[in-house]
Amino acid sequence: MSDSRDDATAVDLSSLFLGPKAENADVFERLLLEAFRDHVFWRRNFHPEDGFTIRERDKHTAEYQSSIATLSQELFGLLAELKEGVPFFSPRYVGHMASDPTMASLIGYFATMLYNPNNVASEGSPVTTRLELQVAAQIARMIGYDATRHWGHLCSGGTIANIEALWVARNLKYLPVALRWGAEELGAREVEVVRPDGERARLGDLGVWELLNVAPDAALDAYDAFQRMLGDPQAAADAVARNGISGLGYQAFGLRLAERFGNALPPGVVLVPSTAHYSFAKACRVLGMGESHLLRVPVDSHFRQDTDALDEILDALAAQHRPVIACVSVMGTTEEGAVDRLDLIDAARARAGRRHGLAFYLHADAAWGGYASAAVRGADGGRLSFEQVVSGQAAGPLWPSESVYHAFSALARADSVTIDPHKLGAVPYPAGAISFRDHRVRGMVSVDAPYLFHEGASDTAYIGRFILEGSKPGAAAASVWMAHKVLPLDATGYGRLIGDAARGALALHDALATAELSPFRLVLLPRPDVNIVCFAIRHPQLGALEDSNELAERVYRAMSLGSGRPLRALDYLVTKTVLQPREYGHAADPVVEGLGFTHDDYLRAGGIAVVRCTVMDPFLAARRGNTDHIEQFIETLGRVMRDEVAAMARESVAP
Amino acid sequence: MSDSRDDATAVDLSSLFLGPKAENADVFERLLLEAFRDHVFWRRNFHPEDGFTIRERDKHTAEYQSSIATLSQELFGLLAELKEGVPFFSPRYVGHMASDPTMASLIGYFATMLYNPNNVASEGSPVTTRLELQVAAQIARMIGYDATRHWGHLCSGGTIANIEALWVARNLKYLPVALRWGAEELGAREVEVVRPDGERARLGDLGVWELLNVAPDAALDAYDAFQRMLGDPQAAADAVARNGISGLGYQAFGLRLAERFGNALPPGVVLVPSTAHYSFAKACRVLGMGESHLLRVPVDSHFRQDTDALDEILDALAAQHRPVIACVSVMGTTEEGAVDRLDLIDAARARAGRRHGLAFYLHADAAWGGYASAAVRGADGGRLSFEQVVSGQAAGPLWPSESVYHAFSALARADSVTIDPHKLGAVPYPAGAISFRDHRVRGMVSVDAPYLFHEGASDTAYIGRFILEGSKPGAAAASVWMAHKVLPLDATGYGRLIGDAARGALALHDALATAELSPFRLVLLPRPDVNIVCFAIRHPQLGALEDSNELAERVYRAMSLGSGRPLRALDYLVTKTVLQPREYGHAADPVVEGLGFTHDDYLRAGGIAVVRCTVMDPFLAARRGNTDHIEQFIETLGRVMRDEVAAMARESVAP
Repeated sequence: MSDSRDDATAVDLSSLFLGPKAENADVFERLLLEAFRDHVFWRRNFHPEDGFTIRERDKHTAEYQSSIATLSQELFGLLAELKEGVPFFSPRYVGHMASDPTMASLIGYFATMLYNPNNVASEGSPVTTRLELQVAAQIARMIGYDATRHWGHLCSGGTIANIEALWVARNLKYLPVALRWGAEELGAREVEVVRPDGERARLGDLGVWELLNVAPDAALDAYDAFQRMLGDPQAAADAVARNGISGLGYQAFGLRLAERFGNALPPGVVLVPSTAHYSFAKACRVLGMGESHLLRVPVDSHFRQDTDALDEILDALAAQHRPVIACVSVMGTTEEGAVDRLDLIDAARARAGRRHGLAFYLHADAAWGGYASAAVRGADGGRLSFEQVVSGQAAGPLWPSESVYHAFSALARADSVTIDPHKLGAVPYPAGAISFRDHRVRGMVSVDAPYLFHEGASDTAYIGRFILEGSKPGAAAASVWMAHKVLPLDATGYGRLIGDAARGALALHDALATAELSPFRLVLLPRPDVNIVCFAIRHPQLGALEDSNELAERVYRAMSLGSGRPLRALDYLVTKTVLQPREYGHAADPVVEGLGFTHDDYLRAGGIAVVRCTVMDPFLAARRGNTDHIEQFIETLGRVMRDEVAAMARESVAP
Repeated sequence: MSDSRDDATAVDLSSLFLGPKAENADVFERLLLEAFRDHVFWRRNFHPEDGFTIRERDKHTAEYQSSIATLSQELFGLLAELKEGVPFFSPRYVGHMASDPTMASLIGYFATMLYNPNNVASEGSPVTTRLELQVAAQIARMIGYDATRHWGHLCSGGTIANIEALWVARNLKYLPVALRWGAEELGAREVEVVRPDGERARLGDLGVWELLNVAPDAALDAYDAFQRMLGDPQAAADAVARNGISGLGYQAFGLRLAERFGNALPPGVVLVPSTAHYSFAKACRVLGMGESHLLRVPVDSHFRQDTDALDEILDALAAQHRPVIACVSVMGTTEEGAVDRLDLIDAARARAGRRHGLAFYLHADAAWGGYASAAVRGADGGRLSFEQVVSGQAAGPLWPSESVYHAFSALARADSVTIDPHKLGAVPYPAGAISFRDHRVRGMVSVDAPYLFHEGASDTAYIGRFILEGSKPGAAAASVWMAHKVLPLDATGYGRLIGDAARGALALHDALATAELSPFRLVLLPRPDVNIVCFAIRHPQLGALEDSNELAERVYRAMSLGSGRPLRALDYLVTKTVLQPREYGHAADPVVEGLGFTHDDYLRAGGIAVVRCTVMDPFLAARRGNTDHIEQFIETLGRVMRDEVAAMARESVAP
């Protein structure tokens, strides 16, 4: 197999999925059977001389027959139950961030699951561990990381990836202190480190604040120097473990900081945009950093991290001598798909370094938006100019915006990127991924597993040493690998697929913004950065924001499963969210005011409820099939809103 | 569907798996197609009026044809690569702890994967979240937990489960302190708590040592009382978060302990048997507890945690006022499948409570052995007596031993149990599980995710709030659910399947112990607790333990993939491990001495290498098919040993 597709024919979006009407069922079934039978005959060809453990006559026993009957019956039962599930495959589903997986990924998963490899170590997964490393390299290339320096792997999802990134960031923050104490313990010479101002200094000459403000690269370089000086990587690792947070634990480390430096400084903080996913709160709790040290940077009216506010916060933290463990840039928020200006955040980091000698780790949570960044990557691996990206797009809205282009183009400047194939990568769960710019970070988290080691093994043979998880399915790696084979991680592949869905979202957004739904008025959130459209609803009879919120809630219930409505009764499926003051602050004001309410109304109501539509259908803007889903959606929405307002009126006069 | 199988016919082991020669391929293929086509027509029946997005004539375009050709070609390529994989399905594979999944689990996984539900929240997985909760209840029943009190869920594997358990244990350890500070902050009355000696005391009257020695149940009761007193669960949760380790973080919490009590006490420790899985080291690092506070309890000559040693360690810790966060009992070690005497460990805990007022969390890592405990559970849910368990077993070795019986019977006394369906549960990755005795522990780790909440939702609708992971495949839940349907979690189901494999392992052990392989001598580890057989090898020409170790290593290489040998060249596949002094101490002495070496030889050689065989084949003892695999394995082993000794001799005289 070559690493690129056979020819340069453009990817055909019709051939990627089973299809909303299972239009590609014939191809799927043929390949499914190929995969299954291929496996069957692999088994049959391994030591055929053994004969058959299960003989044909064993199958005629009452026990066998009964057991197969149970299997069949229970499967039929499961199939019936599954039909109460959610039709993610349909253009009529514009609810959660969930995707219908590509045929390639589903068949690849199934074919490999029959072999049941575990990618914790290549001994049990020689093929799929190799595929996982290939997939990780493809993702790193899309991000723009140096192919010879990066490290990455798959994991169960974005939460685990984010926890792992902050685990690395935490240990890296305290590495210079551990190196200094390690050198003291061994009576070794102090290594030198490059400070944020570019000056070289010996670790022993730095104060605690400076030790906690060594840039990630510089800290890793110092660790390298320590290893070289000792001439024994294991001894260096042991010394760092004994003197670092991994070995001492947070409590003893903090007390020792206080003892040795007379002041432990306040605990390190993590900065996230106020709309960040709850996995960061989870991470701060799990990792012992404490949720109170998770600081939320306000977002602007596009729901992107406000970099002016970030500047101010960094100034204040520097003045208070509060160390910053990491800053997180979210590339596609869970609620709105907003893409932080990573380029500006990185610039803020550089500025804080120059101004205050502040240094910290930069993590991009691109769990949602990561695959969309394929749009800025050329088929040859180079980065496309903005003009190249938007030129030649079919009629209709242009995507991405220049802001989003700049944000995606800066991905390689992050120290790590969370990016979930099982979201916009359109592969089945579980397939999250984490990619690090510098493979040396593995030393921050590696744990030796004696039974995993055999002489002569390569250092990527035992992925389980370097990651948060233990066991993980090799089938997921094969699934992502197959997906990347039919859909490359560049503008011709994922960029095209996600771009078409994003243009569909923009078309929906624009149609909703101008729809004639009188007496209702929709107030749209800003045009989406990727593919999520949110809107609030106003009706003249609803005089309070609370009533308007209730209407949004009722519309959501009438257009979703879970309120007891059967799927067959639903024309379109949406979801909703509430923009809460704690997270959104003044960022929601334009929407609140657009509805005719004030910030005080917003505070009193505890938030503003919006209907939320995630567009995954690449054909929405093209309006294929018998139904114009944009038109129909607006019509359905109008009907539902009228019904629900009428019901609210009835209920308010009812006894 | 009923919750139990239709009739009482005994489970037929021939019908469970695809089979070593894919003997059940016809049934598998039929059900696979049923599942696939059922899904196809579900799609086609959802709004048929929409017509077809992908039309037949679209399939005749060059782009479509080329894209399908790429898909087919890459799939064929993948199928070819997969054949370099490991034949876990074969009785000739006696290597790692890996299983061939049951047909039920594979088809259930595939059928559900087409719907791609995400069990983070039931809104996107109404069916599979329900199935996951059912599966968790079935596992809790097997453990013996109270059905009305337990809490459990699936996760990606045993490592994540163990980390989650210790996360709970850590937060629970410091809960009484957080309750006290929370009450002080709010000016509320101090709640009462039951101390290990049974006396009631107000939290405000306890010293720091006593606060860190409140039993898990008593701490949860105190939290309940605090919530009732405030009359506002959210306010109570917020107060605990602000004053606990989740909010403050470990560093600030430790410094505050030191400030307020004049002494933070040494950091809390976690006790594990010295042979515990490396996930515990990972957990202590991730959770900020520090690996140096992971204390390894010696194991006895059966490689089970030495409970006398545990007693002594607990005495010493009490004397030093070092708090114990948790003690871990391993039910099936990774290397030998040794099952700790959980009953005796729990007794040691009780004794330490009476003697020293010591209280701590007890976790059972039954990732491997958990499903084997089905052997002690009757079909009616009651616990079987030892006599019932071993009566009526077919000719051949009896399993389990009385020790293992007592250990499994005590599972319900643990505060939590890690138990992996994807190990002895014979379902595909990823399917780990964690089960907690008391559902209130969710309060220790829950994080609010605003977008997950909608009014009126039940508290189990959003599993992602209570667990370490975010996204996870609903397909895994359906897979385990289907497996449990054909193979119940009691002596008639998994107990039978695993029992037969364990009896096969015992038969192999006994045959190896008495095999005539002169001039070689095999020194077997003790008879296995479950299904892993390990042995060291002696040859008279190999005068040093190092040589004997080299032979074991060479035998392993000659009987495994990964040294460049193609699968077709292998007759049997084994693995190996090294019993290292750091982990095994004197526990390995009987094996070392059985080889004719001394403890000093063992220390000098850095360990003793043993060949390791995991028996998963339930038909091994029954010797079905044309090949007697026990006989053939011994013959192959003899040949390989002779070849390798000859090669060693050649190499030692070679220039």
